[in-house]
This record gives sequence, structure tokens and C-alpha cells, in this order.
Amino acid sequence: MAVRLKDIARDLGVSVVTVSKVLRGNADIGDETRKRVLKRMKELNYQPNMMARGLASGRTYTVGLVVPDLVHPFFAEFAKSLSGYLRTSKRALILASSEEDPEVEQQEIRTLLNRGVDVLLIASCQTNLRNFYALGDERTPYMLFDRNFPHLAAHFVGSDDVLVGEMATRHLIDIGRKRIAHIGGKNSSTSFDRLRGYRNALLAAQLPTQDSFVQAHDRVEEAGDKVGFQAMQELLKVEPRPDAVFCYNDMTAVGAIEATLQAGLRVPQDIAFIGCGNLRYAPYLKVPLSSIDHGTTELGRVAGQFALELSMKPQQEPKSILVASTLVVRESSVAGSR
Amino acid sequence: MAVRLKDIARDLGVSVVTVSKVLRGNADIGDETRKRVLKRMKELNYQPNMMARGLASGRTYTVGLVVPDLVHPFFAEFAKSLSGYLRTSKRALILASSEEDPEVEQQEIRTLLNRGVDVLLIASCQTNLRNFYALGDERTPYMLFDRNFPHLAAHFVGSDDVLVGEMATRHLIDIGRKRIAHIGGKNSSTSFDRLRGYRNALLAAQLPTQDSFVQAHDRVEEAGDKVGFQAMQELLKVEPRPDAVFCYNDMTAVGAIEATLQAGLRVPQDIAFIGCGNLRYAPYLKVPLSSIDHGTTELGRVAGQFALELSMKPQQEPKSILVASTLVVRESSVAGSR
Repeated sequence: MAVRLKDIARDLGVSVVTVSKVLRGNADIGDETRKRVLKRMKELNYQPNMMARGLASGRTYTVGLVVPDLVHPFFAEFAKSLSGYLRTSKRALILASSEEDPEVEQQEIRTLLNRGVDVLLIASCQTNLRNFYALGDERTPYMLFDRNFPHLAAHFVGSDDVLVGEMATRHLIDIGRKRIAHIGGKNSSTSFDRLRGYRNALLAAQLPTQDSFVQAHDRVEEAGDKVGFQAMQELLKVEPRPDAVFCYNDMTAVGAIEATLQAGLRVPQDIAFIGCGNLRYAPYLKVPLSSIDHGTTELGRVAGQFALELSMKPQQEPKSILVASTLVVRESSVAGSR
Repeated sequence: MAVRLKDIARDLGVSVVTVSKVLRGNADIGDETRKRVLKRMKELNYQPNMMARGLASGRTYTVGLVVPDLVHPFFAEFAKSLSGYLRTSKRALILASSEEDPEVEQQEIRTLLNRGVDVLLIASCQTNLRNFYALGDERTPYMLFDRNFPHLAAHFVGSDDVLVGEMATRHLIDIGRKRIAHIGGKNSSTSFDRLRGYRNALLAAQLPTQDSFVQAHDRVEEAGDKVGFQAMQELLKVEPRPDAVFCYNDMTAVGAIEATLQAGLRVPQDIAFIGCGNLRYAPYLKVPLSSIDHGTTELGRVAGQFALELSMKPQQEPKSILVASTLVVRESSVAGSR
């Protein structure tokens, strides 16, 4: 049975109000009494009931996180880093997944707000901004991460995805490729921005852009391998075919490489590939995968820090925090590299 | 701003108590009033404040889950399936990770209990049962999953890991291997039971067991690839070397295969491998990996169902629910299979 305030009060012969005031750091309790109460709390390993404390203080000591897919290693790694950071500050993370369904996302956001969280973090799959304008009227501060809405004045933590697209495409240009295709997503800022970066890099190198070289698809997060496989089959029909492909994420690249190998072509000699995310298994794939590393652990830490700040001071001007990405070269783009 | 009971009461000219009684399904409110209140709630899209409701009913409508590692796809897939099931019953999942540290696990369990959850699910990394006996005295029912403690009378949802070990090892015997090694974990029932299954299968086939063929290591969950790589380097020193290895999980197998290929040996011709978990990327590895599929989605569904049952009826005799595992054969054990 958990230790309660009244157990401590009874043991010391003081009132419950006194014990409660000590707990809240109230100044009108004498030093000696305060010390006795704190000593007894420690002896009994007293843990405050967060729920009652939450109702009293208006704080819940929880942070809510809504991601499109729990199984996607990027979101899992982010959640792990975030929850580790919050743990050091005695906050807990409440995690929900939208399964890339805007309606489920709305439902999960409502559930979290009703339950009470101090801050809400959302990697959104919404295509409609209206719901977020409404969210701005709630008392709970929120922060977008990974996926931004350029026309929404909201807090954001993530990568500079235009730069990510430029960095990946420039790498393919640097290794001498001329016909560079892109397999991308739909409906998210990460998709649009990586595509924009891809186009910027081609323009800067005076390489042609052609519509038949851009494949944009749904479900690149949960079913990236299947989507990449099918998109690559389409790209292989284009004449002349691409000699390099920048893929939206690693799982999409995995599927695209599979389609390429099945067509009897060599990677990277015939077609070079680069993904995004630098997932844990990238070095162990059939063709070890070049990728862009988003610094996911750092992203989780930065988001945790900002979430704590927002929980203390909810009213702040919208702020964007960008974490730098880095290029990781492996055999899918440069033969013989490790 | 969220709609509150008093807004509804004011709009309809009834008391807050009346509205609250309707919300709780109290019988002493007339039919007409009840209908008016429910209609207005619907019009305003009223969402009950779960925190206040929790204090009143003693329920929190949340289920707590403590896993050793969020990034491990097995736990991520389990959490995804569980949270999907709970969502359909208007429950939220609070997720915490112990990072395979028994002290962090205790801290996370305390945090969840103090915050209030209706049921607690734990894939424990404890080696000491004492903490769980204490947990049995709390009012919150708990359930172990994936990792069991045979001497603890607790609810359990997971796989029959002795069978898992037998199934994997028997497959290696069926393909004609005679010198079968095992790379396993430490300190968890899954490790002990898979090792026991491995020994059972060897005995049943009258194949010799030898200590130098069993490698048991820490950190097989978070750093499986590194652990598998090093363990395999040890196994390759044994003379005569093994011709097959049953690995504790897929990531361990990935590392072990890497060490084998780097030693200039062929997989599966020289050494065959099988992992456990059948992770999403298993088909796309350098050598597509044979594995045991734990039916993780089904596991999450079953655990969710049982958690709901426990939240309604916390006092129950300890119950074990086992979900069947299946063998998936790929090229790491049978050349030319897909």
C-alpha cells in the first residue's frame, strides 16, 4: 500500500495540512518541522500522488506525443530519446500513434488533451490546418515536430528538410550521376521540402529535372518497402532510365533496391541509391545503404528541453529549432565504401 | 477552450449535478432531461475531463506499459498493436522504457503507479523478484509480458519460449546440421527458456551438447548486432566449428552473420543461421534471415483484451496466455529459399 500524507502526519503528530505545505515548499512552516517531515518522507519512501497533485497545481507532469507510426524506427528512436530526457526531470511521456490517419490523429489529440498533459508534441499527418488553429485556443501548449506547417504560427522542432534533400541529391551529383530520380511522399512538409531540396540541387548543377523522374506516394512510412518497390518498377520503365535515386526514407530505398536487383541491374554501378534516416539496420542490408542521419537522439533531447520550457512558460512566440543532418556514405552509392 | 459541464448546465437551465449524473448514467434523472443533456453534449462536442473523472471513479482509463527498449521493433510492434486495441475501448497507453536497467525499471513502475494507471504491463529486466512481490500488494493489477518469472504467481502474456527454442533448433536439425551452436541472452526467462528448448531439441535428436557452443551475453536487445558479432568470433575459434547457429533474436543473428561473412565463410553453406522475432527488415538483409515469428500483433491484441478485463475485475487468479509462434524459412538456413 502506498504511503499517504496522513500516515506521515500521524507518525509525527502534526496535521495533514502541515505535511502538505512542506511538500509544496510553502514558506510558513518552521524549519525544524519541515526537516522532520522531509526526513520521515524519505524514510517511508513517500511518493506524491501525481494525479491529486496535478489537480491542485494544474500540472500533470506528463508530456503527450502523437506520432504517425510507433514501429518506424525514426519515431521510436525519437520517443526513446525524449522519454529519457523527460525522465531526468520526473516527467512521463504519454505516447499515441495516429497510424497515418488524420481522423485517428484528431481523436488521439483530443484524448490526450482531455486526460491532461502539460505539453503536446505532434508529428502530424493532417492535410487540413483547421484543426490546428482550434488547438491554438486550448490552454495546453503544443509543438510540431518532424513535420511542419509553413503557414501555421506554431512551435517546431525538426530537421531542415530542404537542406536534407539538397545534401542527398548533391551527393549523387558529386559521384558523377546525371539522371537522378526521386521517390517521395505526399501530404507532409518533409515530403515537399525534400522534393524542393532535390530540385534545388539539380538546378544548381544545371541538370535537367523531368516529371517522369519524380514518384510521389502515400504510405511511405508504414509500407516504405512495398511503396519503394513499386515506384522503382515505374522508374525502370522510363527511357533512358535513371542512374541514381534519392529516396524519401531508408525503407523506401530498401524496396527500390530490391526492385533494381530483381531487374538484373547492379547497385551502385547501374543505379546508385541514397535514403534518409540512417536506421540501425542500414549497414547490414543486401547493399549497405547510404543515408542522411537526422541526429534523432539529439532531436529527442532538444524537443524534451523545449517541452519542459513550454510546460513552465506556455505563452511564447512561435519558435523553430532545427537540428543539423549529416551524410553517411555506404555501398549503395559508392562501391567499395564501408 | 474546452466545453465544461457548467456550460451545458447553463445552456439548458439545469444544475451541474444533473448534467454530471447524466454523464455517469445515474438512473434518477428523467428521460426527457437526459435526452436534452446528451443532445447538447453532442452539439458542443463535449469531452469529459478524464482526470477529474478518474479521481471520482478511481479509474484513469490508462494502461501503463514498461518495456526494456522502445527502439527494439518487437516492443514497438507490441506497443503499436496494444495501443490500437486500447484506442477502440477509449483507453490510452502510457509508455515507459527501462533501457534494460533494473533500477530505471523500478523508477518507471513507481512513476506510473503514482500517476495512476488501471493496469500495468511489464516486460521486466529485473533479476530480483522482491520488487514484484511488493507490487502484488498495490491496488493496481499488473501483468508480465514477454518475460516471465516462473516462481512468481503473476499474470503473463507471451510466447512459449521453450517451444520457440525447440522449433528453431529442430529446423537446423531438419536441414541436416549436426554441430549446432546458440547465441543467447542472460537474466531473462526468454533467454533461459530458448536455451532450454535448444537443449531439448538436441537431446531429442541425440546430438551432442557442448558448453563451448553456447554463448550467453548481456545487452542482446539494445546492442544485438555488436553482441552477435563478438559472440560469433568466439564460436569461430571452436574446433570443429559449428555448422549452424540459433540466435536469441534477429539483430544478434545479423551481427553473427556479419562476422561469418567477414571470416570468408558462406551462409548457409558453411554455417546456417536462424533468428527470433521475424522483424520487418529480415527479408532485405545481406542474407535474408530465417526466423521465428512471435505473432506480435496478436500478442498486443490479446494483452490489450486481458488488460481491459483486469481493469474491470482486478482480483483474478494468476493466468498465463500464450500466443503461438511460427517458423519462417529464408536463405540464411536454406539456400535458394525466398
